[in-house]
Amino acid sequence: MDVANAPAPKWTQWANSNRLIEIIDVSLRGCAQVMFQNNPLTGVLFFAAIFVGAYSEGIPAVAWGCVLGTVVATLAGAHLKDRASWKAGLYGYNGCLVGAALPTFLHVSPILWLCILLGSVVSVIVMICIADILKTWKVAALTAPFVLVTWTLLLASYAFGGLHNSALPSPNLPHDLIAYNNDLFDGIHLFDGLLNGISEVFLISSLIASALFIAGLAVSSLWAAVFAVCGSLLAVLTATVLQAEHANINNGMYAFSAVLTAIALGSTFNKPSWRVLIYTLIGVIFTVFVQGALNTLLTPVGIPTLTMPFVLASWLFLVPNKDVMPAHRQ
Amino acid sequence: MDVANAPAPKWTQWANSNRLIEIIDVSLRGCAQVMFQNNPLTGVLFFAAIFVGAYSEGIPAVAWGCVLGTVVATLAGAHLKDRASWKAGLYGYNGCLVGAALPTFLHVSPILWLCILLGSVVSVIVMICIADILKTWKVAALTAPFVLVTWTLLLASYAFGGLHNSALPSPNLPHDLIAYNNDLFDGIHLFDGLLNGISEVFLISSLIASALFIAGLAVSSLWAAVFAVCGSLLAVLTATVLQAEHANINNGMYAFSAVLTAIALGSTFNKPSWRVLIYTLIGVIFTVFVQGALNTLLTPVGIPTLTMPFVLASWLFLVPNKDVMPAHRQ
Amino acid sequence: MDVANAPAPKWTQWANSNRLIEIIDVSLRGCAQVMFQNNPLTGVLFFAAIFVGAYSEGIPAVAWGCVLGTVVATLAGAHLKDRASWKAGLYGYNGCLVGAALPTFLHVSPILWLCILLGSVVSVIVMICIADILKTWKVAALTAPFVLVTWTLLLASYAFGGLHNSALPSPNLPHDLIAYNNDLFDGIHLFDGLLNGISEVFLISSLIASALFIAGLAVSSLWAAVFAVCGSLLAVLTATVLQAEHANINNGMYAFSAVLTAIALGSTFNKPSWRVLIYTLIGVIFTVFVQGALNTLLTPVGIPTLTMPFVLASWLFLVPNKDVMPAHRQ
Repeated sequence: MDVANAPAPKWTQWANSNRLIEIIDVSLRGCAQVMFQNNPLTGVLFFAAIFVGAYSEGIPAVAWGCVLGTVVATLAGAHLKDRASWKAGLYGYNGCLVGAALPTFLHVSPILWLCILLGSVVSVIVMICIADILKTWKVAALTAPFVLVTWTLLLASYAFGGLHNSALPSPNLPHDLIAYNNDLFDGIHLFDGLLNGISEVFLISSLIASALFIAGLAVSSLWAAVFAVCGSLLAVLTATVLQAEHANINNGMYAFSAVLTAIALGSTFNKPSWRVLIYTLIGVIFTVFVQGALNTLLTPVGIPTLTMPFVLASWLFLVPNKDVMPAHRQ
Repeated sequence: MDVANAPAPKWTQWANSNRLIEIIDVSLRGCAQVMFQNNPLTGVLFFAAIFVGAYSEGIPAVAWGCVLGTVVATLAGAHLKDRASWKAGLYGYNGCLVGAALPTFLHVSPILWLCILLGSVVSVIVMICIADILKTWKVAALTAPFVLVTWTLLLASYAFGGLHNSALPSPNLPHDLIAYNNDLFDGIHLFDGLLNGISEVFLISSLIASALFIAGLAVSSLWAAVFAVCGSLLAVLTATVLQAEHANINNGMYAFSAVLTAIALGSTFNKPSWRVLIYTLIGVIFTVFVQGALNTLLTPVGIPTLTMPFVLASWLFLVPNKDVMPAHRQ
Repeated sequence: MDVANAPAPKWTQWANSNRLIEIIDVSLRGCAQVMFQNNPLTGVLFFAAIFVGAYSEGIPAVAWGCVLGTVVATLAGAHLKDRASWKAGLYGYNGCLVGAALPTFLHVSPILWLCILLGSVVSVIVMICIADILKTWKVAALTAPFVLVTWTLLLASYAFGGLHNSALPSPNLPHDLIAYNNDLFDGIHLFDGLLNGISEVFLISSLIASALFIAGLAVSSLWAAVFAVCGSLLAVLTATVLQAEHANINNGMYAFSAVLTAIALGSTFNKPSWRVLIYTLIGVIFTVFVQGALNTLLTPVGIPTLTMPFVLASWLFLVPNKDVMPAHRQ
């Protein structure tokens, strides 16, 4: 979605002449596109962050799932007509996230690896489907293919003995959260919440990983890094004022969708300006409400929101973009 | 949505020359557009009804929320390119309803007023978004922006200690209602059900308010008033035959969406005729089923249907309008 | 959706000259269109299957509901402009399924018959609505009108004492299914599952009925019959490997949507080829996951998935059809 930031021309030449290097290049870009960057170096830093985070959390399958998902989705999209999008990694990022999400919530088993395979291939089909539908209104598919495919597989895991859930929230009826009496910021770790908010985009909770993700953004677009950090901070503050559950705020659960909304509205689909800044601010705050709403809505069926709050809020703010903004990139 | 009924030309002149009067004029039209009328006098009568109803029910915040929501949404839409729609109040009515709904279901607090503010601004963005999507099929957004924004905030209130619910239905699993053995009309107050059905469009249960709402409709369009009253009666009768819960029928809970369907299908988007009458009749009866269905569907997540049954049924009947009707207004 | 397979030309002449015969002809084609066939003889065999199945299961109302629904929907569509679709039975098949589904899940009563009447008429309106929306992306409405209308009525039955449910699943929170320790195929009746999967398209569980349905497909399109049988087998195998509940596999509950996906992707909207075969294979396997997912998703509201897994999976695979397939029919 970003115009290609120039990597070493030598690498580009190499990628164009060697099929294997091309697949690696496009897979790296696919990983980077999870945060809207079309840059193989960003992909390297992101994969480094994923491996650091997944191994430090003791779930290596998350990292290997990411690799498998990205490569399979990239291969599945290799014969499509829309070659430019493929080269930019736009058919790979959903597979990357499918591969991260499934081992996070489901028990690792041979069937799970087959599900990552199937999910990555289907994510490409869903990508084409949603992109085709949304081009009527000039809006991108964002991470909707990832969310829809992963929701399908997670919901299905309840019906299938062969797919055992390991970390899904137990299905329940929503309860009204009681207000705290003490100081709003008691028990809130702003810095942790902010950083976890960034790594949780890849379903990882790790401060070192977050630093690597920010570095990955910065090598491709400084604005993207700035919006990611500020978006995360704003989301944590909003959730704190609204008195969301402390553990969720500190884990970055109210910030990861907001991070993506901030990058998307602030730097990917608009050029930074005062008007864009205010629009992004409202979008980020509203994303926090959508996060709370989806948390409630999904409680009875026991699945996580994934990045759907970002997808819904950003679609909502991107469709009217041309009516609200004086000028914008398409 | 209605061609402007002529108010005193003096008022129009005044509104065109004075910025403050213009905002008041457009806000009044915004309130009137909740029932599809583009008429400031209707807006005056509607606001009178809202204040009478809200104060008699002991929830003044509902009335002041309506005022705040309408004015904020009107101001937020003031700089949009689509000036004609703005002047007709089409960016104001969703804010009006957001302002009525939030204090009805949530505890009144400073954060609630901020939510009304945010919700009204976002209702304008959702309005542009939905209108933009639906213009592909020449259908209006109806009150969908209001419902989606309010659902988001109400669902989020379960996750946020700072937003305390005061009157939301408790989340539960649906139970099958047992049939009554006695006479169908035992315990049904037709007249109350009919009138409450009209005032419940604004989430108010008051007979005097209903009379004022009907008067407000009549000064703008006699047909609209007739369809509102007959639609409400038909809905109450349908719900009675289907043996819905008596309290809900008498409170107008099965009629308020049907009232809007009746006005929309019968007088706003079609010219009254025999064919239109039959189509509207089927639409109103089906709206009662959609109302029952959404009541069940939302039971596990503890939020009200708001006017979604009207929105869904009317979209359903309006898209095929051109294929079914010999001639119609667009 | 199929080019008319030639029935006896005499019958066609007769149908063109006599209004009553025409209604019978179009109703028969309507029934056949449930499985995408435009052939009155297929309709005769399908109706025979329905009567055999419904009477052998002791629910004759299902068969008569089918007849009523098909005829009412056919009559309701008789005056529409899109005469070619009407003649092919495309306004009848949703009414046919509404008439089969309502008596399957709800207590038979005079109000139920009125609901079949209303549901069949509304199914035509939903058909026009969805077809109109989806033609933007050149995709058919499939059985979505049936599912949406029936879901509405079934959900509403919880709210209405006059509509008593007889066989709806009790609303509940989803539970994770435990894996079996023994052999995967222990307790699985492949042959029953395969055949029931075909008759369950019409909500009927009967081996003789299945044989008649396959015969009905074969007289119109041998490929359709082949894809139906192979699709059902593949779905039963997939559900077995994933360790779904045995009773559901043997009853064909994991196969009926897959049967329709197989016919649609393999023979109706594509010409059979190796590429189509692989695409259909992935589509059928994914339909089984969507079936499991929707089972979980609908558990808290106590309604069955009906053919929605087929509708969702097929839309998903049909929108990208032109980007994936070298050449295809429209």
